[in-house]
Parts: sequence; C-alpha cells; structure tokens
Amino acid sequence: MWDTIWTNADLATMAGGAPYGAIPDGAIAAADGRIAWVGPHAALPDAPERLARTVRDAGSRWITPGLIDCHTHAIFAGNRILDFEMALGGAGRQEIIAAGGGIQSTVRNTRAAGEDELFVGARRRLKLLMAEGVTTVEIKSGYGLDIDTEAKQLRVARELGRRLPVTVRTTFLGAHQVAPEYAGRADDYIDWVARVSLPAAARQGLVDMVDGTLEPGHFTPPQIERLFAAAHALGLPVKAHTDQYSDGGGGAVVARNGGLSADHLEYVSRESVAAMAASGTVAVMLPGANYTVREKRVPPIAWFREAGVPMAVATNCNPGTSPATSILMMLNMAATLFRMTPEEALAGVTRNAARALGLVADCGTLEVGKAADLVLWDIERPGELAYRIGWNPCHQVIKAGAVVHTAAAI
Amino acid sequence: MWDTIWTNADLATMAGGAPYGAIPDGAIAAADGRIAWVGPHAALPDAPERLARTVRDAGSRWITPGLIDCHTHAIFAGNRILDFEMALGGAGRQEIIAAGGGIQSTVRNTRAAGEDELFVGARRRLKLLMAEGVTTVEIKSGYGLDIDTEAKQLRVARELGRRLPVTVRTTFLGAHQVAPEYAGRADDYIDWVARVSLPAAARQGLVDMVDGTLEPGHFTPPQIERLFAAAHALGLPVKAHTDQYSDGGGGAVVARNGGLSADHLEYVSRESVAAMAASGTVAVMLPGANYTVREKRVPPIAWFREAGVPMAVATNCNPGTSPATSILMMLNMAATLFRMTPEEALAGVTRNAARALGLVADCGTLEVGKAADLVLWDIERPGELAYRIGWNPCHQVIKAGAVVHTAAAI
Repeated sequence: MWDTIWTNADLATMAGGAPYGAIPDGAIAAADGRIAWVGPHAALPDAPERLARTVRDAGSRWITPGLIDCHTHAIFAGNRILDFEMALGGAGRQEIIAAGGGIQSTVRNTRAAGEDELFVGARRRLKLLMAEGVTTVEIKSGYGLDIDTEAKQLRVARELGRRLPVTVRTTFLGAHQVAPEYAGRADDYIDWVARVSLPAAARQGLVDMVDGTLEPGHFTPPQIERLFAAAHALGLPVKAHTDQYSDGGGGAVVARNGGLSADHLEYVSRESVAAMAASGTVAVMLPGANYTVREKRVPPIAWFREAGVPMAVATNCNPGTSPATSILMMLNMAATLFRMTPEEALAGVTRNAARALGLVADCGTLEVGKAADLVLWDIERPGELAYRIGWNPCHQVIKAGAVVHTAAAI
Repeated sequence: MWDTIWTNADLATMAGGAPYGAIPDGAIAAADGRIAWVGPHAALPDAPERLARTVRDAGSRWITPGLIDCHTHAIFAGNRILDFEMALGGAGRQEIIAAGGGIQSTVRNTRAAGEDELFVGARRRLKLLMAEGVTTVEIKSGYGLDIDTEAKQLRVARELGRRLPVTVRTTFLGAHQVAPEYAGRADDYIDWVARVSLPAAARQGLVDMVDGTLEPGHFTPPQIERLFAAAHALGLPVKAHTDQYSDGGGGAVVARNGGLSADHLEYVSRESVAAMAASGTVAVMLPGANYTVREKRVPPIAWFREAGVPMAVATNCNPGTSPATSILMMLNMAATLFRMTPEEALAGVTRNAARALGLVADCGTLEVGKAADLVLWDIERPGELAYRIGWNPCHQVIKAGAVVHTAAAI
C-alpha cells in the first residue's frame, strides 16, 4: 500500500509529451518518500482509498515538481545596502570599494561571522524560497576565499539541509575571485585552491560540486581547467560562472570539461553553444543579475533553443548583484526580459535545474522513482507561475511525501 | 491622554529635514486615529505611560508612514495569462486581439462579472499590497467604458474601502480608451463620457478624481480637455495617463489644467516638465509597466529632480501591462531601472503619492494631525526597502492608530 495519494489534480509532470507534460485530472502517489505512481485518475488500478493509507483531495489545483533553485550564494554575512544607495547616488565602483563596499566587504563580514549567524541569515532566505515551492537548493561557498571560511560556509549549508525540509547541494566556489591575500597572483591562488583549499573541504565531505569564475579579471581558461582537473581527481563534477560580461569562450571550456552547467552566458558564442549542446551542459539563466546590473544584452535564448541546450533559471541569491529570494520573480524575469516561454521558465526550475545539479535521477519531474517533492498551486494554468509580479500562488509544499508548508489563506 | 504611543523606534517621517526626515530614537503617539505627537523620545513631555493608555515598544524597528499606492486598476475580471503566453510564443498584438485577448477581453470580462466576483478578486490584490504596508490605495474604473460597468467598478472600490482597513480613493477612468460601441468615434465617445457617464457616476458619490488616456490612438489634448472641463464643473480634480509611448505634450496639458498628476511620462518633454513644476503636478512613475512592456526609454528622472517636480511611484496593478501586487518590487524597479534614489522611491509611495491623490493634509508623512497610518519594518536603514527582490520586511501595519496586520515570524 502507498502512503499517500493526491487526487483531483492537474499534473504538470515536466516529463515530456504534452506541454508541461500535463496530465489533466491526474493522480500521484508517494511511498517511502518517493513517487510510487503517477497518471490519469482513470488509469488508477483500484479505488484511491484501497491504494493508499491517506487520500488527499488536491481541490482541482495544479501540481508541479518541487522547484529547484540551482544557483545561489545564500550564505553570507552583512548586506550591500550601502553599496546600493551609493551607486544610486551616483558613486562609481571604485568609490564604493574605497568606502569599504563591494564583494570584499561581504568576504570580510563572512570571514568574521560565526556559524550560527550565517545559519540564521541563510535560513530566512531559504524559508522565503521554500514558501514559493522550492524543495531543492544549491548553495555555494565563495565569500571566504580562505580555507577556514570556505569550509565554514559549506558546513552551514550542510546543516541547513539537515535541519530544514529542503535538499541542499553544496558547491565549492573558492575560485569565486582571487583572495585578497593573493592580490595580483591569480596563478598562485588557483594552484593553492586546487591543491589545498578544495581537497581540504572535499575530505570533510562538504563538497558536491566545484565552481569558478571564468571571466577576464578573474580566472583564465587554463587556470579554471587546472581547478577542474583537481575537482575531477576528487571525483567532483564542475561548472562555471562565465561569459557574463564578454565572450571568453567560457561555455566551450566548461563543455569540453564535461561541466554540469555554465552560468550567466549573456555573451556566450555560437561555437560555445554548439559545444554545450554536444556535452549536455546546462545553460543557467540568472535574470536577477542581468536586471540588477542593468546589462543591455540578454543570453541568446534562441541559440540554446535551436541547439537543444537545456536552460535552467535560478535566483543567484547574493547580496550584491541579485539580492533575490523569489524564484517566481525569476520566472517572470526569464519570460519578460529573456523571452523564455513560461514552459521553458518552469522547466528551468524543475527538470533542467535538476540536470544542472546532477540530480536528474532524483528530482525535477513527476516520475515514478523520483523524490515525492511536489507543489500544489492555486493557478488556472502553469503559465501563470511566470505571469505575475508579487503574487505567490503556492498552496502547499510536499517534501519526500510529507506536507512541509501550507500557505495562510488570503 | 493619547491612545497609543510607540517608543524605541527610528522614525522615517518623510517630512523633510534630515534624509528620510529621520528621527533616531523617536516616539510617535496616536489619538482618535490621528498622529498626536512625533519627535525624539528625549523630547517627550513626560514618561510614556503617563502620556498614553497603551505604550508599544517598537523593538528598535524603523517606522515609516503607511505606504500609498496612487495608481492601480485593481478591479477587473479574468486575467491576461493567455496574452502573456501568446506574446512569449511569438504572437503579435493583432494576433492576440484576434484570439480574443488584449484589453478588450478585460472589458468583456469586467462587464460580465458580478460585483461579488469583482470584490473578491480585488480584495486579494489589496491584501497583498496591505501586507507590504499599503494603507491608502487609489483604484480606477476604466474596464467598463459603459455607464453601468464604470459605476459598478467604483461601487466595488467604495465597498473595499468600507470593509478593509485601507483608505480607497476612486478615479473615474471612463476615458481609458474608446468604448467598442464608439469605435472610430473618439470625439463622440469623449462627449458622451463628459456629459453622461461621468456625471452619472459623480452624482452617486462614486468619484474622487477623473483620469483619461492622453496618447496618440486614444484621446487628443482637446478631447481630454473637454473631459477635464466636465470634471472641474463637477468639482473633481483631474489627472492623465500620458507621454508613455511618445511626446504628445501631455504633461503640459495636465499641468495647465491644474492636474494632480501625470502618469507614465517616458517621453515627456522638457517643456512639459517645466509646466508640471510650475503647477505642482506630480510625475507618477510606473516602473512595472515600463518593465513589462520592455520600454527602452525611462522617464527623465534628472529633469524632474532639477525642476522640482514631485515624483510618485505606483504599482499600476492591472492584468495586462503590470500584473503587479508588490509595492516593494516597484521601489526596487524605481531604483534599479529608473535610477531614483531609495529615498526618492520611498517619498514616491508616501509624501508624493499623497499629493498625487490630493491627500497631502491627511497622510504621506509622520506629522501631527495626519492619519496615524504607520508601518513598522524589520530593516536596518530605510534604503533597504528598495534593495531586495522578494523579501517583505514589513513587521506590522497600523491604520488610524490600530494594528491591522502583523507578519508571521519567519
């Protein structure tokens, strides 16, 4: 017997076939935290109450897979409100840095913060995401750049995954930028990251993936490939922040290293797109950063679409370039600014986000055997999830078969 | 004795002086629903418990005036999700209209809807705004374009104001566009609005202000001025949607008719800005529409600033060009997209929004004699209100001295 069955639901399985993989008047069952059955109600082998211990009427709501935010920097101390105010007052980047702002202020604050403080701040951000249906979230380090703080961030990420009903995947981002102690010595820094800092974190079981910034002024392709080689030697998959401000061939570098994803990609070349298609590398769209930094160019959605590159969408939650804790607003921006269709945007926070995290076997679609991570929505059609600004239609969130959040009635 | 005094608060009075009119370690008292005292705690004439029946510790939070959303179309039936999906699928405007979409679909649905249905839909939108600190909201008609539906929308607006703890100001927008029955006969339609439809609604006490669309393809300056003359004959103030897609001199037309506000203004001319400054007409910024329609030009904030034109910010809540129910996201867009400072953005939803509604004597600042409409915020500095995407730091909303909303703990 199954544990729970939901009936009277329209299912957006995101598993192919019809648009949204839709199954109208469907049913979905969970057993031991996994999806045990999914299909049209009419195809159920028996009456629901004879198939499962608990029968839940979904009230004609839509059910989607639990949402996946596949790119966040959700663990940090301090904020960058002063930077924001200074920039709007007309200050330039150098002026803001001279006043103690910029990413280095986040590094200083995060180094100085205790694990409890980091945990409490990130928990609030995750709870905001979870209230919008997020059941899996990726969290990067990268605000330490020293051995202790990188590991501290990742320990907090693991602790969040243990204490909240959300799956947390950790990404080591020691190569976010050159540590202040290594200013002007990017080569030395990347070698230290590859030989010392990353292996230390990996030995403690803190690392699921490895990421780096492959952009002019940060790290070069040869430097990032040294990092990737170290990751692969540890059995860890890789990805990169790349081609955000200019085409450095970053998409192709990630692709030829078998990367899970290349993220940002406003300036990615057509050649890189072809390489990503061949390697199955996901293009992670970060519209919150595109919007916040007022980048004029958007990523080449049509090229990804034509080449068959899977597109994901994420918040990029961070205090500087995307102070965002709304995955739904990211769907709206992916549609409005990037011209992704609502279906592409939803695939970007389900099926393709799972792929960007190496979790295709585990989540991202409503299919038998995957985690019973579900969201019940008060919507008429799935496209509605990308349509509004500031309206969260999430009714209920199910994690591994259990109700973990129910919206207050409005 | 006062009814209530809040102590242990930083006050953003928005009443001039310091940035944000800030009073650190302030106190504010309410009596009979109005502000009875406001100032530094140290200046209180006696101990708080001897001055007021109830003493509330604000917990070191910031207190701002209740927010004011001075431009909404919050009462309508149906939605425009299908339009949104079609546009993202590549359909053009004519194709969407041929499929039964566009604003005419909202007119059809709103005409067909009962008052209860309109009330329930709008109540949800207002509650979302109120949860972000909105205590005063303007609501326009304009989805009826016939005599009965325009009045029906305004009756629902009045009912919302009676039943929810929010001040509702109504705007007659019969001249939103030419009614389908008058297609191609804008002159005849505007005369009918001015002579029949507007006076009928006004006689029923449903109209606080009169608005019209002064744009090519909608109504010309002479047509709008006939409408304004009819409004003035009824003793009603006026405003217009104008200069959104091209410079039609609309700002100057509104100014020379003593209008409360001109709204949109992406293409307003420098001459119009000077005229608005001279007449005290408010420039209402609607960044949600600018974002949603992907307009390349933003309103000339620097010109407004230099000329001393008061700037307001509003959601423009409507199902087509700004499906927005987040005033905080509008602050973020006003800052990020329009480059208003966080202080200008906050003045845009307090002091200047009050002016755009003819309510300067009643709300929009923390000053003695005004309504005791307050918001307590979990923020470090007022600029924070414009900084984040998808984080509502509203702790508590006070309307006329009474607590009407408290956020759930996260």
